[in-house]
Amino acid sequence: MSKRILVDCHTHIYTKRLVSLLRSRTVNPRIHTNSPDGTEKLAILPQEVSGGRTVGPQYWDVRNKVSFMNRHAIDISIVSLANPWLDFLDAPQAVTSAHECNADLEQYCSDATELFASGKGASEVEAARRMKAFGIMPLAQGVDPKEVVSSLESIAASPSLCGAILGSRGLGKGLDDPELEPVWAKAAELGLVLFLHPHYGVGADASQPSGLWGSQDNGHVLPLALGFPFETAAATTRLILAGVFDRHPNLRLLVAHSGGALPILSSRLASCVAHDPHVCNRLQHDPRYYLGKLYYDAVAYGPEELEAVANIIGRAERYRSGTAAAPVAKNGGDSVEVGVQRMMFGTDHPFFPPTKQDGTVITDDQTETWRSVTENLEAISDVPAWSQAAKLGVFGQNAVKLFGL
Amino acid sequence: MSKRILVDCHTHIYTKRLVSLLRSRTVNPRIHTNSPDGTEKLAILPQEVSGGRTVGPQYWDVRNKVSFMNRHAIDISIVSLANPWLDFLDAPQAVTSAHECNADLEQYCSDATELFASGKGASEVEAARRMKAFGIMPLAQGVDPKEVVSSLESIAASPSLCGAILGSRGLGKGLDDPELEPVWAKAAELGLVLFLHPHYGVGADASQPSGLWGSQDNGHVLPLALGFPFETAAATTRLILAGVFDRHPNLRLLVAHSGGALPILSSRLASCVAHDPHVCNRLQHDPRYYLGKLYYDAVAYGPEELEAVANIIGRAERYRSGTAAAPVAKNGGDSVEVGVQRMMFGTDHPFFPPTKQDGTVITDDQTETWRSVTENLEAISDVPAWSQAAKLGVFGQNAVKLFGL
Repeated sequence: MSKRILVDCHTHIYTKRLVSLLRSRTVNPRIHTNSPDGTEKLAILPQEVSGGRTVGPQYWDVRNKVSFMNRHAIDISIVSLANPWLDFLDAPQAVTSAHECNADLEQYCSDATELFASGKGASEVEAARRMKAFGIMPLAQGVDPKEVVSSLESIAASPSLCGAILGSRGLGKGLDDPELEPVWAKAAELGLVLFLHPHYGVGADASQPSGLWGSQDNGHVLPLALGFPFETAAATTRLILAGVFDRHPNLRLLVAHSGGALPILSSRLASCVAHDPHVCNRLQHDPRYYLGKLYYDAVAYGPEELEAVANIIGRAERYRSGTAAAPVAKNGGDSVEVGVQRMMFGTDHPFFPPTKQDGTVITDDQTETWRSVTENLEAISDVPAWSQAAKLGVFGQNAVKLFGL
Repeated sequence: MSKRILVDCHTHIYTKRLVSLLRSRTVNPRIHTNSPDGTEKLAILPQEVSGGRTVGPQYWDVRNKVSFMNRHAIDISIVSLANPWLDFLDAPQAVTSAHECNADLEQYCSDATELFASGKGASEVEAARRMKAFGIMPLAQGVDPKEVVSSLESIAASPSLCGAILGSRGLGKGLDDPELEPVWAKAAELGLVLFLHPHYGVGADASQPSGLWGSQDNGHVLPLALGFPFETAAATTRLILAGVFDRHPNLRLLVAHSGGALPILSSRLASCVAHDPHVCNRLQHDPRYYLGKLYYDAVAYGPEELEAVANIIGRAERYRSGTAAAPVAKNGGDSVEVGVQRMMFGTDHPFFPPTKQDGTVITDDQTETWRSVTENLEAISDVPAWSQAAKLGVFGQNAVKLFGL
């Protein structure tokens, strides 16, 4: 019972076919192959100010992922495509590319299985279980929602795919677009986990001196540390306000980076909703109730953050409509365990790679233990209020249960 | 010792002179006096989509504030101007207007003292202590920083002013503008509290369907619940990254809405800083250390949020450079008390007024107990991990100490 199984629910790749497509493009998003420093650079945003971020085989070579998993004692990874997803393509291309990506993701998992099976003492059954993937839906402007629904059906029928990655733009109008109704209905029906992940960040259009990030050189810190979790919070809130979880209470949404900025703002959100005539009578429950319906990765890098998120998930039942106001439990009580059960370990590999003293990336990494991984492991271990069983859940058993691994 | 004193450190007004100025303007920000529903409407943003928010005497009539305070047993209020502040004016106007506002704020406090003194059983000494104010600095594009420094000196010499409100734009380039150095130095030298408050929010330029807030009608919920705390988090982070707290460790910054989105993202921020060659060797300490140097209002509407913020403030010493990695204290330990001492009650009056069942504002309010106030009071009372003494601190004694009331 107490053996630790470690599942990484937040780990990215690009498929080789997608990399080729990005190399062939002449406008962003694209991969520049002729950077001064000899590396390939992926430029995502239309107005990318830096030259883009360095990409290499760590993003597409399955041997790299397997080595990373073995080095960090990760038993199972559920890989997902990294951004950009498919909304830069026109509708027919997006549909074709989603098919190709899902086939390639399935192949990636097979290739991993072969590598694992060839390892010392590995059983074939165990090997086949170690690499899973989120598929991708053709979410781009002009795509018929029926195509999206159909892609969910093929993902569900694909042995290694156990959910789908989800950006925040939907079919171009965001996730509160009524056209997406059949997509939520199908995902809920199939029990597929949708992994909501930030895509563009917030504030990228704010490069003027008076903009959100200003004009000082802070590298990628502000858009990455703040802009990403802002985007996640906004997208999740828009889903809640659109009543998606009232109509689809069984929808399984896994929210990246421990829910981004939303958990700490959720009582403020509830107060704003209660005081706004446009929204106050729209939802079945207090907005805080819906935070208890979501799943969260444990990619927050600190124990106090994780504890806060679990407490905020765990209190959700207090905010179910018709519930008599229950007192706040001393030391969290049962609600702590309820909250923790919806959280699961992730690494965000291959982002946050190890660096030298001066901050430059160690690109020939094959042996390093990644600080970003140990930080997230220690954060889980260090939450004072969590039982050992709760921690084992976050390390892996919650994901095993959610994804049926 | 155990008598509760209640201090409201987050409560807004407009001065009558500022209201006249806003009424006289023909571009935003301005007050529309001819709305269809007969109320005056303040439109702040250049591209305000709604007609603006209803304003009335609750924003400028001191009798309204006094009635509100008496009704909610608030012993002391430290009022601050609500946005827009003065950056819509040209430089000479901003300087003049700051002088006028500070004189008017001083008068507002005197008027309140008279009202309090005429109340039943009030002593004059007590009455004089009950209304204080944050002054305002002439922060607008083109203003000489010397003028800002000089306004801090007159604020410090003004008997009822005990700090200054601070938006996020500074002199037009944000708070990480090196030109603001003498301002931070002077504020630290004078021991004045700067109250960092969001001004424009984030995402206001995102009204297209694919923008941050999308095109569904969610009233003001998204910019208010999320956009404001996003702005606060970005502004505070930029101050930290600019090294302001390394150079001015005694600067007293009170951050609105319990730090907005920053506390829950602070370990993510630390990880992004550690992994970015542009920033990783710039600061004296891990970014989380600086969150322990700030002060926070307790305007977060929920006990779990407040507890999280206190824990995150309280852990700061773990991240002081040169500190041997200390284990995370069981149940928070002393660090809980350390964190709580930097938090203080606020109401955000006259925002979040009571509403009818359908969400419309009760405009003739003279007798209602405000839900937004009781929520913030109960949130403090309900934090399981806080001692009674800690709660009394948050209700008022922390503010008494910080502001020397």
